[in-house]
Amino acid sequence: MVGGGPGSLIGKVHAMGAMLDGQISLVCGAFSSDPEKSEIRGREYFLPPERIYPAWQEMIQREKDLPDGERMDFLCIATPNHLHYGPARMALENGFHVVCDKPLTHTAEDARKLVSLVEKTGLLFVMTYPYVAYPMVKEARARIDDGQLGKIRKVVVEYPQGWLSAPVEKAGNRQALWRTDPDRSGPGGAMADIGVHAFYLAEYVTGLQVTALMADLNPVVPGRRLDDDGNILLRFSNGAGGVLFATQIAAGEENDVNIRVWGEKGGLEWHHHDPNRLILRIEGEPVRVLRPGHSEYLFHGAMYASRLPAGHPEGYIEAFGNIYRQVAACIRARYRGADPSPEESDLPNIYTGLRGMLFQEAALASSADRQWVTMP
Amino acid sequence: MVGGGPGSLIGKVHAMGAMLDGQISLVCGAFSSDPEKSEIRGREYFLPPERIYPAWQEMIQREKDLPDGERMDFLCIATPNHLHYGPARMALENGFHVVCDKPLTHTAEDARKLVSLVEKTGLLFVMTYPYVAYPMVKEARARIDDGQLGKIRKVVVEYPQGWLSAPVEKAGNRQALWRTDPDRSGPGGAMADIGVHAFYLAEYVTGLQVTALMADLNPVVPGRRLDDDGNILLRFSNGAGGVLFATQIAAGEENDVNIRVWGEKGGLEWHHHDPNRLILRIEGEPVRVLRPGHSEYLFHGAMYASRLPAGHPEGYIEAFGNIYRQVAACIRARYRGADPSPEESDLPNIYTGLRGMLFQEAALASSADRQWVTMP
Amino acid sequence: MVGGGPGSLIGKVHAMGAMLDGQISLVCGAFSSDPEKSEIRGREYFLPPERIYPAWQEMIQREKDLPDGERMDFLCIATPNHLHYGPARMALENGFHVVCDKPLTHTAEDARKLVSLVEKTGLLFVMTYPYVAYPMVKEARARIDDGQLGKIRKVVVEYPQGWLSAPVEKAGNRQALWRTDPDRSGPGGAMADIGVHAFYLAEYVTGLQVTALMADLNPVVPGRRLDDDGNILLRFSNGAGGVLFATQIAAGEENDVNIRVWGEKGGLEWHHHDPNRLILRIEGEPVRVLRPGHSEYLFHGAMYASRLPAGHPEGYIEAFGNIYRQVAACIRARYRGADPSPEESDLPNIYTGLRGMLFQEAALASSADRQWVTMP
Amino acid sequence: MVGGGPGSLIGKVHAMGAMLDGQISLVCGAFSSDPEKSEIRGREYFLPPERIYPAWQEMIQREKDLPDGERMDFLCIATPNHLHYGPARMALENGFHVVCDKPLTHTAEDARKLVSLVEKTGLLFVMTYPYVAYPMVKEARARIDDGQLGKIRKVVVEYPQGWLSAPVEKAGNRQALWRTDPDRSGPGGAMADIGVHAFYLAEYVTGLQVTALMADLNPVVPGRRLDDDGNILLRFSNGAGGVLFATQIAAGEENDVNIRVWGEKGGLEWHHHDPNRLILRIEGEPVRVLRPGHSEYLFHGAMYASRLPAGHPEGYIEAFGNIYRQVAACIRARYRGADPSPEESDLPNIYTGLRGMLFQEAALASSADRQWVTMP
Repeated sequence: MVGGGPGSLIGKVHAMGAMLDGQISLVCGAFSSDPEKSEIRGREYFLPPERIYPAWQEMIQREKDLPDGERMDFLCIATPNHLHYGPARMALENGFHVVCDKPLTHTAEDARKLVSLVEKTGLLFVMTYPYVAYPMVKEARARIDDGQLGKIRKVVVEYPQGWLSAPVEKAGNRQALWRTDPDRSGPGGAMADIGVHAFYLAEYVTGLQVTALMADLNPVVPGRRLDDDGNILLRFSNGAGGVLFATQIAAGEENDVNIRVWGEKGGLEWHHHDPNRLILRIEGEPVRVLRPGHSEYLFHGAMYASRLPAGHPEGYIEAFGNIYRQVAACIRARYRGADPSPEESDLPNIYTGLRGMLFQEAALASSADRQWVTMP
Repeated sequence: MVGGGPGSLIGKVHAMGAMLDGQISLVCGAFSSDPEKSEIRGREYFLPPERIYPAWQEMIQREKDLPDGERMDFLCIATPNHLHYGPARMALENGFHVVCDKPLTHTAEDARKLVSLVEKTGLLFVMTYPYVAYPMVKEARARIDDGQLGKIRKVVVEYPQGWLSAPVEKAGNRQALWRTDPDRSGPGGAMADIGVHAFYLAEYVTGLQVTALMADLNPVVPGRRLDDDGNILLRFSNGAGGVLFATQIAAGEENDVNIRVWGEKGGLEWHHHDPNRLILRIEGEPVRVLRPGHSEYLFHGAMYASRLPAGHPEGYIEAFGNIYRQVAACIRARYRGADPSPEESDLPNIYTGLRGMLFQEAALASSADRQWVTMP
Repeated sequence: MVGGGPGSLIGKVHAMGAMLDGQISLVCGAFSSDPEKSEIRGREYFLPPERIYPAWQEMIQREKDLPDGERMDFLCIATPNHLHYGPARMALENGFHVVCDKPLTHTAEDARKLVSLVEKTGLLFVMTYPYVAYPMVKEARARIDDGQLGKIRKVVVEYPQGWLSAPVEKAGNRQALWRTDPDRSGPGGAMADIGVHAFYLAEYVTGLQVTALMADLNPVVPGRRLDDDGNILLRFSNGAGGVLFATQIAAGEENDVNIRVWGEKGGLEWHHHDPNRLILRIEGEPVRVLRPGHSEYLFHGAMYASRLPAGHPEGYIEAFGNIYRQVAACIRARYRGADPSPEESDLPNIYTGLRGMLFQEAALASSADRQWVTMP
Repeated sequence: MVGGGPGSLIGKVHAMGAMLDGQISLVCGAFSSDPEKSEIRGREYFLPPERIYPAWQEMIQREKDLPDGERMDFLCIATPNHLHYGPARMALENGFHVVCDKPLTHTAEDARKLVSLVEKTGLLFVMTYPYVAYPMVKEARARIDDGQLGKIRKVVVEYPQGWLSAPVEKAGNRQALWRTDPDRSGPGGAMADIGVHAFYLAEYVTGLQVTALMADLNPVVPGRRLDDDGNILLRFSNGAGGVLFATQIAAGEENDVNIRVWGEKGGLEWHHHDPNRLILRIEGEPVRVLRPGHSEYLFHGAMYASRLPAGHPEGYIEAFGNIYRQVAACIRARYRGADPSPEESDLPNIYTGLRGMLFQEAALASSADRQWVTMP
């Protein structure tokens, strides 16, 4: 693992998710740019001292030299945004698969370079977009793919948070500090940080691509250099319209990702605050509430993405765990020279990462110019 | 009453709402342009034959000639949209107060003429926007007005319906027929029919005015001449951003009007499908759910707008009833030469009607030109 | 109307419910044992002075003497419990149909006398149990009757209120005063006042009868002479088990009536706090949520019991209105010499009233003796 | 670990919960009474062959002989019910701490023997009742302990499942087979299997003890030898009344554990199907919804029991993880010679296990004799 040092939340989530199913072990790490902090964190994970590295460059180099079966199988990148590109590139160049937190890079240009590298090396490159890994989100996609809603007409996708409601970065909140700093976070604020989750969720669930958007980004808290709130009109490849909003200044909100999709025959609805529930409305029929674990009516992808019988709630760590379980399955399949199953390979990949960068750039451009922008 | 003949839903709702509290009686009517149908409906209301009129012109004329205490106190207009202006104008010109279903007219120009007439005559002119008459919506407004959310930052207001999901107007659905016909419905479709409810709800609850909008109206069902779906970005007078969507092709939806508002300190949320509930989220505090009938914590306006103790659900007819109860109180106050109380006079009025027309025109223009449009 | 004087809630509810659909007019009343108060209330209803009576005895006598078409069609009894029997008896003896608030009487013995009188006279006798008049409760009954849950196995029915949580009767709360006074309320407290609603709801929805019960009544607030809380185990005619609880000391509760029923194939659930929703769970299928107004999937009884299209909430007054609309239909049918339809005659009747008294007596006996008691 | 062989669900849950926080490793196991199956499961956990044992007796013996720092720290018992007592006893006798799935034993007599052994050895003995390990359940207890509801008056606790709705044991369902077999499951059915969770939840949350109960156990599915459904009236040490029901034949239900508690000042409510939510109703105040991760308003115990910031759902595995994280902390504290913190030691223990057995015996006796039974 790169990053995830003391004080990092997402590093721990990666670790818990990766190890949840007993298929993956954390074998080495460069957890911080401060070697001492890296050391502290490494010991907390009970790593042998020789595999706690002071810097990611050294880690990739030295792991590469370890014998087969000992060296790490893949690199997990859990650093702040500006430190994704470097480790990703070096890992790929040295033959390591990569699991990378979003966003992929700071610019679409860098993202394209990584795409080339992945295409050249054929290595696995997985983005940890956790919301699409929930069983009921997979079910939503499967039902739409199966035509149960008919042609899609309208999508409303939302990501309200409230934690940047006050200028907490001025009060020393570390998470807020780097996220509101263009140097470390990149040119996008809330829309890049969380809007991109909503964007991918919409594309994943519908199987459509956004072809044009009209953004209104709004830096609400005085003194902020990056957008902390924004609303976007969307148009999709099939003509459907939509709305996306993402905000970090919605005081009182936690971390609610919501999607509603309507088609000719009906609609569906999912909320992260109660993730084990998919609401399905078919015109002229009672509303249906689908829940995980029901092999009688769920598609296989949703069944694959839960571990427990119906009525035993799973959450965010399990969603991360789903991604890692699939990563392990894909790597095992490569060792065996086999193809992973459709459920195993249903993973956000390097192109997901690239589209996220394209979305971010389009949103910034549209908002600045106050006009519709097309997406490739 | 004008309109509300056989087959009309809204006419019955007006009647039930008006008579709910025993303060208003239906004394006469011209229920249909077909005198026979007017007769049928009038008898259903047990009206004396001489006060069932074959046409509204005749009704206004003849009622005017009745002695004090016998003639109708006000005219209720429950006709299709293209028949609002005529009766409204004639009623005002003949000294009758008016209660008018929305939209006020077909054009903002006509609306302005009625504004002048109201200002000249000093008569009461009330628009029946029922959603703002729910107790928990009044509470939302009162809390925001009281500063409990701090400065408003973001508004999301929605009106999804699914009943025009299929081309039911081709199958003879009468409600659909006139609503999808520009001649009878006016130049606006879903946005004019229901979007305007969402628009007014947003302005009412926040106490702000929309100053600019960017609309994307979308005629989804092939062959329709009017928009049946649309998404709009909003900007409010205080700089807040927002989203409004209204759709009649969201298959599976009933008639859900939803509003969420966030300010510096917290947010609130109301849904028409469970109207006796206002969700209030103050940053750093537990979510609160407010319900009608609780004098211990509700503002007076919300208490005034319900009839039953806590735990006894009221609904749409009661919301209509609230408007009519206030109309009765305002008229009684005039008889007494007194001012109505703030709760009694908290009514959608002629300016509400005008703003609805301006909104509709701005949305149509913005969508056609694909650019932001300012509102006066 | 008898009772429903100034300060009475239920009198107003009867009036609003009765007049909601424009089929019934309030034509006379003896609203209070205090003639002055009766006068005040009668004027509020705009009654002619000669039909505002100082006492119910006089009203029944004088109305009887009015000519056909002028005299009242039926008597509505909305007095405190100890004043149900007298007016009911006299009304029946003088040829008037009766609509009576629950409980029927103070004792099962009195109830049986009224049963005889109803059987002898053939008059209509309707009890206003409003919860069974909600459309989704009618749907629940219809689905069970249709066998959709299979054989019923278990019933849980609840009525939690919190308004007697503190000794408010000592603070002068009038509703609390007579309800906690055995002389006016009868020997039963919460179980008689609200438990009986839960009891009837269970019998109505399942179509079964309770055959045995084991009660634990609990006067919680010190100094109360009547039970204000109680829990009961139930056994039904088909062997199913169940639980009923009713409480008025559940601080924080409003007026939530809840029922859950499970059978061999699935279960259903209804809550008064969100009455336009019936939750249906069939084993191996997604949970279904049924809502009023959907002719595509609702049984006729549920359609008959709502007035508005799907998505327009109705509530408590409308449930009362359903009872009165059916009463009007039944009386009209008698005038025509016809039978009312099954939807029209689906009304709580004199036997419902009697079973309520038997339930109350069984609960009191079981709790006193701490043993199971059988019901006839 | 003892038990948890191929086909076992709960074994995997123990493993995932134990390893979630990186504090505990699975070092050895006797996963099945069939050595071959034990071997298979052990390899799935990547255990070294010499620590995959063919039988638990051998495991305890040989682990005991391993040097300090190598041998297992505690034994986890995840076998069917009839195999809890043996391993528990031998582990204690050989100096190992024990984490034991419920129920503790088959009889209260055996349970008392284990109590003596724990008291004599001073070893840690933890029961894995996961529902009390959810953060919002800990918050419920803390709020009641803090007096926020006042004196407790009424408790309603429920555990509805539907998976034994049909005679699935005859169709070869392995979980159903041993659970409906008195030889392997003990004399209690649903009440012992899941009712005991509800029982402990009620005692944990309220801090009260049940002193008397009146049970009506009901074997619903023909041919079953053990109760699969039951309803119980409760009385608590402070005079409060209550209801407990547990059922495995409630067709359509998943695994919903629900508790409602009311006191003088208000009530609270928790549902396992949406576990990250505690509903708090204080009389005269808006309903409050509390959610994990909010240090601004939660008690320390609830904060300690979640890992993620507000808005990131945790579930059943995390609840198990909480128990194991506390076990690890308690063992570490012993190594250090220190006392664990109150949050660390808030664990279901050997007395919890004993009370579960006493509850089961009282319920069986009461139902058989159809009378109230007191509990010690």
